[in-house]
Amino acid sequence: MAIQVFNSMDYEEFINKFGNVIEKCPLIAAAVWTNHPFTSLGALEKMFEDFIDLLPPSGQEGILRCHIDLAGRDLLKGTLSSESQAEQNQAGLTDLTLDQRSQIRELNASYKNKFHFPFVICARMNNKDTIFRQISIRIHNSPEHELKIGIAEVKKICHLRLLDIFKQVSHNSKF
Amino acid sequence: MAIQVFNSMDYEEFINKFGNVIEKCPLIAAAVWTNHPFTSLGALEKMFEDFIDLLPPSGQEGILRCHIDLAGRDLLKGTLSSESQAEQNQAGLTDLTLDQRSQIRELNASYKNKFHFPFVICARMNNKDTIFRQISIRIHNSPEHELKIGIAEVKKICHLRLLDIFKQVSHNSKF
Repeated sequence: MAIQVFNSMDYEEFINKFGNVIEKCPLIAAAVWTNHPFTSLGALEKMFEDFIDLLPPSGQEGILRCHIDLAGRDLLKGTLSSESQAEQNQAGLTDLTLDQRSQIRELNASYKNKFHFPFVICARMNNKDTIFRQISIRIHNSPEHELKIGIAEVKKICHLRLLDIFKQVSHNSKF
Repeated sequence: MAIQVFNSMDYEEFINKFGNVIEKCPLIAAAVWTNHPFTSLGALEKMFEDFIDLLPPSGQEGILRCHIDLAGRDLLKGTLSSESQAEQNQAGLTDLTLDQRSQIRELNASYKNKFHFPFVICARMNNKDTIFRQISIRIHNSPEHELKIGIAEVKKICHLRLLDIFKQVSHNSKF
């Protein structure tokens, strides 16, 4: 069982494995480890969510600010985290026309100018079209509402990254 | 004035500059940015400290766990953060005998085995001898007390890293 493999990890192994399920926030995985052993993958996921929910608004904004602009220069340069790179690739964001690239650059800039954190969306649950639509809609939200939506998207990203690790470990432990 | 330079930074520039004043925790710098403008370097430093103090114990343990073992393999391989590398170098930790290296490896392991986070000390306020002495003494503390001491050391490291950035920016803004 993958959960037994996770429960047997010391904190260093755990951070190596889970350190980026919340983008660039190994602190959160390192804090979650305190609560091991976990009864299930769902219980482990809930620990990540609970930790995020208990942060003050500035801390939640901080989590969003650790994300790089969607479809930005780092995607083209290949300098994103490997998880982000794969996710944005899958959503078709490496395959934009010049016009679309300039459009998303302007939308990202307007969004950040209003909210002071970047637009975060679970790319794997979306595609080019829904991402463009969502940023165009969400930019009209209030900052408080948008912080809630951004954090909900962070949790979806976390969910899928946890599932990936779970599948990988389940597969390996069969051999 | 350096503080004016910091206050004029957007969150991306701020994270680039301050993202590692708490080792591997850009989330904290990203959260602190919310409270800009800062009236002074002292006020900025207090924001880092306040954020840390408001975290639950698991979050504070998480901060400690984002630190790599002092004088460990990563120091020799040169794969530490540039700040840690310079700090440990300055404390003479790159210059240990084989015996001292094996001694610190054992002390680190015993410490982590007891506390489930690594031994953290402000290397620049110490030297080889005081570091060996401190770990030998601190290993007898209670986990609660040792968490407090570890976090106090994180704040000293943060203080010196902030001063470095401040000096660097003050120097550059003269030209």
